[in-house]
Amino acid sequence: MDGSNDLLLTALPGIPLVDSDCDIVDLVLAALSAQNLTLKTGDILVIAQKIVSKAEGRMVNLAEVEPGDQAKELARKTSKDPRLVELILSESSEVLRAIDELIIVAHRLGIVLANAGIDASNVAPSTAVEQVLLLPKDPDRSAREYRRRIKQQTGSNVGIIINDSVGRAWRLGTTSLAIGVAGVTALEDHRGKLDLFGVPLKVSEEAVADELASAATLLQGQTAEKSPVVLIHGFTSRTDEQSAASLIRPLEQDLFR
Amino acid sequence: MDGSNDLLLTALPGIPLVDSDCDIVDLVLAALSAQNLTLKTGDILVIAQKIVSKAEGRMVNLAEVEPGDQAKELARKTSKDPRLVELILSESSEVLRAIDELIIVAHRLGIVLANAGIDASNVAPSTAVEQVLLLPKDPDRSAREYRRRIKQQTGSNVGIIINDSVGRAWRLGTTSLAIGVAGVTALEDHRGKLDLFGVPLKVSEEAVADELASAATLLQGQTAEKSPVVLIHGFTSRTDEQSAASLIRPLEQDLFR
Repeated sequence: MDGSNDLLLTALPGIPLVDSDCDIVDLVLAALSAQNLTLKTGDILVIAQKIVSKAEGRMVNLAEVEPGDQAKELARKTSKDPRLVELILSESSEVLRAIDELIIVAHRLGIVLANAGIDASNVAPSTAVEQVLLLPKDPDRSAREYRRRIKQQTGSNVGIIINDSVGRAWRLGTTSLAIGVAGVTALEDHRGKLDLFGVPLKVSEEAVADELASAATLLQGQTAEKSPVVLIHGFTSRTDEQSAASLIRPLEQDLFR
Repeated sequence: MDGSNDLLLTALPGIPLVDSDCDIVDLVLAALSAQNLTLKTGDILVIAQKIVSKAEGRMVNLAEVEPGDQAKELARKTSKDPRLVELILSESSEVLRAIDELIIVAHRLGIVLANAGIDASNVAPSTAVEQVLLLPKDPDRSAREYRRRIKQQTGSNVGIIINDSVGRAWRLGTTSLAIGVAGVTALEDHRGKLDLFGVPLKVSEEAVADELASAATLLQGQTAEKSPVVLIHGFTSRTDEQSAASLIRPLEQDLFR
């Protein structure tokens, strides 16, 4: 951060329930306009994964999923629905842990999370509980696309973060992660900078996109659909060339698989 | 969050370099007063661990540390200073991983982190590089004490979070954690609440204190001493009876040791 001492987060009211007929950029710009808010270059929009996934048609009807042998076996071991397990496996590159009712995987995007981030809450009315929602196909690409279109329509260069709430090793409770990033620093590299006493900092990369994602979650609320979009004003980004992929720890540096 | 759509974070300017002669509450109230800012009930102060530790005299001169046999052996294995390793061990309940230049432990407070959170940067001018800084003895207690004294002096019930930047499994970069909490929700329990479609949420505890800690870090900057204190206005806390200890995952639920 250079300059301002303030960071202002605003949850955008008026975003309707999203389905695959919706266009996220249109919805966001309409909600901003209804509040007489304008986007300024440097502003950041944090958008909940759930509405991105819905707009991209990532809803799956479990009745249409045919579990394979591996899924059936893992489903027995974990007491989970074999069709859901089939989807989890199809979305993952590796199963890290599997115990009762819990499967922790490396998602094909590189993110380590439970159930491959597949969500069964808030996706459809309870009469249709067989619906589940997968993560977006390529959230970094979606973020870039939103950024490009917003620039086109408003003239402002804004940062986009697509966020999701994810559990953690060692600590209780979810925090939010940036699963898609465009036009804002994902990983801030402080190494080599001097500390207050002129000593170079040695180990200091800060996951600012994850911190921005978590800050926004405080306003999004748990369902993330009451206020799925949060506008952040006042954060100075050092680069706009990173993606959420830059937050994934490379396998060879990973001590906790 | 109920009510407001906005969250405002303000980094307090004018906090001087802290040493063991300083009183954190006095410094914070003076900095607020200099900015004509008043604390309102419900406001949250996020205070960087580093200044709390310094004020509590947690600086240690490595020259005065005598490493034991276990420390010497671990120091050889990790190519670290045996005196620093002695301090790491004395601050920890368990060593989880130890490889070249990296020791990951369960701190006696329960937090899993590298080097037991002992910091060698920003603690003293480079002529005295033998100084390192331990985490506060009992940051939950410090947070409660700050809250009590601020209530006494201002009449306002504020939340206190003492935060520290910590690395993570699976992802690059640090995010901030709440290591001391008073008067603000640490873990928000959404279980049993109904989702937007009336279906009860099953797995949903949100580590709001960690999210507040991370939000503040965006303004604190890496050294956390340029702007070690951040005021958060607009967050509605559901309970004021939790501590940072409630964020520690119990051993028997921990799949990643």
